[in-house]
Amino acid sequence: MDPNVHLPQVPLRKRTETLEDFNKIPAHVFPASAGRTEDGELVIAGNRVTHLADQYGTATFVMDEADFRARCRRLAEAFGGGERVHYASKAFLSRTVCRWVDEEGLALDVASHGELAVALAAGFPPERITVHGNNKNHEFITAAVQAGVELVVIDSLIEIDRVAEIARQEGRVQDVLVRVKPGVHADTHEFIATSHEDQKFGFSLASGSAENACLSCLSTDGLRLRGLHCHVGSQVFEADGFALAADRLLGLWARLVSGEKTVDADVTALDVLDLGGGYGIAYTPDQEALDVEEVAGDLLSRVATKAASYGVNAPVVNVEPGRAVVGPSAVTVYRVGTVKDVHTADDTVRRYISVDGGMSDNIRPALYQAEYDCRLANRLATGDLVSTRVVGSHCESGDILINDALMPDDIAPGDLLVIPATGAYCYMMASRYNMMTRPPVIVVADGESRVMIRRETVEDVLALENF
Amino acid sequence: MDPNVHLPQVPLRKRTETLEDFNKIPAHVFPASAGRTEDGELVIAGNRVTHLADQYGTATFVMDEADFRARCRRLAEAFGGGERVHYASKAFLSRTVCRWVDEEGLALDVASHGELAVALAAGFPPERITVHGNNKNHEFITAAVQAGVELVVIDSLIEIDRVAEIARQEGRVQDVLVRVKPGVHADTHEFIATSHEDQKFGFSLASGSAENACLSCLSTDGLRLRGLHCHVGSQVFEADGFALAADRLLGLWARLVSGEKTVDADVTALDVLDLGGGYGIAYTPDQEALDVEEVAGDLLSRVATKAASYGVNAPVVNVEPGRAVVGPSAVTVYRVGTVKDVHTADDTVRRYISVDGGMSDNIRPALYQAEYDCRLANRLATGDLVSTRVVGSHCESGDILINDALMPDDIAPGDLLVIPATGAYCYMMASRYNMMTRPPVIVVADGESRVMIRRETVEDVLALENF
Repeated sequence: MDPNVHLPQVPLRKRTETLEDFNKIPAHVFPASAGRTEDGELVIAGNRVTHLADQYGTATFVMDEADFRARCRRLAEAFGGGERVHYASKAFLSRTVCRWVDEEGLALDVASHGELAVALAAGFPPERITVHGNNKNHEFITAAVQAGVELVVIDSLIEIDRVAEIARQEGRVQDVLVRVKPGVHADTHEFIATSHEDQKFGFSLASGSAENACLSCLSTDGLRLRGLHCHVGSQVFEADGFALAADRLLGLWARLVSGEKTVDADVTALDVLDLGGGYGIAYTPDQEALDVEEVAGDLLSRVATKAASYGVNAPVVNVEPGRAVVGPSAVTVYRVGTVKDVHTADDTVRRYISVDGGMSDNIRPALYQAEYDCRLANRLATGDLVSTRVVGSHCESGDILINDALMPDDIAPGDLLVIPATGAYCYMMASRYNMMTRPPVIVVADGESRVMIRRETVEDVLALENF
Repeated sequence: MDPNVHLPQVPLRKRTETLEDFNKIPAHVFPASAGRTEDGELVIAGNRVTHLADQYGTATFVMDEADFRARCRRLAEAFGGGERVHYASKAFLSRTVCRWVDEEGLALDVASHGELAVALAAGFPPERITVHGNNKNHEFITAAVQAGVELVVIDSLIEIDRVAEIARQEGRVQDVLVRVKPGVHADTHEFIATSHEDQKFGFSLASGSAENACLSCLSTDGLRLRGLHCHVGSQVFEADGFALAADRLLGLWARLVSGEKTVDADVTALDVLDLGGGYGIAYTPDQEALDVEEVAGDLLSRVATKAASYGVNAPVVNVEPGRAVVGPSAVTVYRVGTVKDVHTADDTVRRYISVDGGMSDNIRPALYQAEYDCRLANRLATGDLVSTRVVGSHCESGDILINDALMPDDIAPGDLLVIPATGAYCYMMASRYNMMTRPPVIVVADGESRVMIRRETVEDVLALENF
């Protein structure tokens, strides 16, 4: 009926994909338990996605508990113990996930009063909680100190006085790290050895601000300086940036513990070098996650060697993965609503597939130009591959989930599409734009499923209103 | 204490601003009732912002009811009646706002089942509701048809059958518009007379898809074609794009009503040309909102002339402003938490002011590189102007509200900052990122204030969990 359907398709980046490829479930992008049944349905942890969609509706997040736990264990082993690995809760936080992290022996990072409140509500041990944030107010710091969190990461001079005063009022000495900008910026496949000073977090190493902040902490009653912190980037595939940042921080470390500038201060408590997170995961089949064993081995030996070269004891190394734990553990299940072939300006055709979600449950393509993979879940596809854009249901033309992909042309309304690697920064950044309330998060494990977070409803929205 | 504070400041775009300018409240950016008291405090609709912050906490949205209503009335007058002006509820929707829109006699656009549900829950008359969306599922269309909405905007061939089938099942004839891509793209200060075909909404005019869709609607039982719809862009300051789109749509209109291709169809119902929204507002003092009277006068005379030239009766013109109604009616009030001077890579200094909100309550700077204005609310500033970035409290370096501005250096923790023109697409796109739950929306009118939407709490988040 549409006169455009026989026009040539728009050019596409990944022309090499085949139908056979499309029907495969890429193991390094999906949860470990994902695969197809003999009749071609996608199954995760023994649950057919068609059954999950029938039971819980769509859109829905599906999280593989065993996959999440396995990634925790792998990181703990690589870095020499769970207490070295701080799960960055901003990636995905619920009480259930706090319990999993606790049971696997990992530590936990929180970056707001709300994240701390959720962790404590879950019963997470405060002595394994580290507190982040560029704007910790009095209430947040008080809650953290009263709870007895292990570490507060100092991010500004104002905070030195603020944390110390609260600690003294509470009759405590609060262990702190100082957040340092090492002048290293690592993102994806490259790192930059200079710059990235012009951002809100931390104290500049190059300018001397970081050292001054450390000296200030060392001379302030109520604080005990335990070490240094840095974070070089997000979704990093190139490990050299972490190593260079560690090298630079150890220079400051050596000056501090050598006692040169710290004659009257007790530097014996310094034992932690926190190198942050940012370990890249595979969102699409052409990516390979950062090898955490390799990075861990490299970093730990580098820190030991560098510390020895300065004649000081090596600190323990903490890391803060979030995405690398939860990112690949969850997928989003959508149902196809409409399919149409769109005549583009250059007399070609692009197929548009609309699903029952979009930028409200995954803002990352619109916000970061993030790329995702997408597979048919309820059957094997049989059609010809055509240039396709997967879009959401929002009233906004930028509401795109998959900007361009080759997808089979037999995908039709009612089919189920699954986007993998949506465990991190999707539910947490979800909005109710267009009154499309948040999907549920379903846990799958051993052939069973259960609700971790229920679907929001319009009634939930209306309950906030005075009317 | 920080060694950087005496370094030169980073270069800045707007070097011309003075302290006197900064202390002014730009009337075309703030709600109409905003001003300063004699002692220098910001007051909106007779409410001191300091009092609002004390009573409701920060961050908080403050919406001026009279300002909202006045913009409704101005648009209704410009376009020849409230029924011609469809408030685009995606910009900001609550039952209270539905009531204001209803009382001012405007019509209402909804773009999702959730938006329709809120409008109906508010008692908004369905006969003044138009239904949009690229992916209207069976439940949404059924709810719309059953409610008796005035118009459903057809966005894909699949929807023609879907709406018709539901209408027949319900024993009704549903009035519809066909969404047309006129090949015009207007954004901000320019428009492009071709292209923008490659997006999810509507049917291409140039390819003939739009005409085919109209003919299909005319020949389908259960549907009554009432007219055409288009939308050329967002935050438009240049009215020519609207006029060109109207011209192009009238070409199709004339072919339809002339009966040339529609011998057996009843075209007598065609009476609506909906030219969408996108009217630009002033986010910063250097911008001037699109003059709606001028645009309305121009469009209405253009449509009349063009229709006459085709020898057909002129359709009524509907428009769909959202931002132009609610955008300037609300501001966001933040409290300053930390202030620090950051050494940048080029040996200059930028001041960073952190406030108790950020990309969770206003994603637009990060998502669209949107620029906002910012003023001190609790007093007049007295300091020297320095290069300043206003950032939120999120654990993400991209969490920036004002990227660069000259602001006085006496702004300190505890001060209140107000960002104006946050009524549209801020609360609606708000997330709970970092468990920073949504601020409240406070209505101010005649010296009084009341809660429209209460503040969300961590308890609200936890209530969704099974634990």
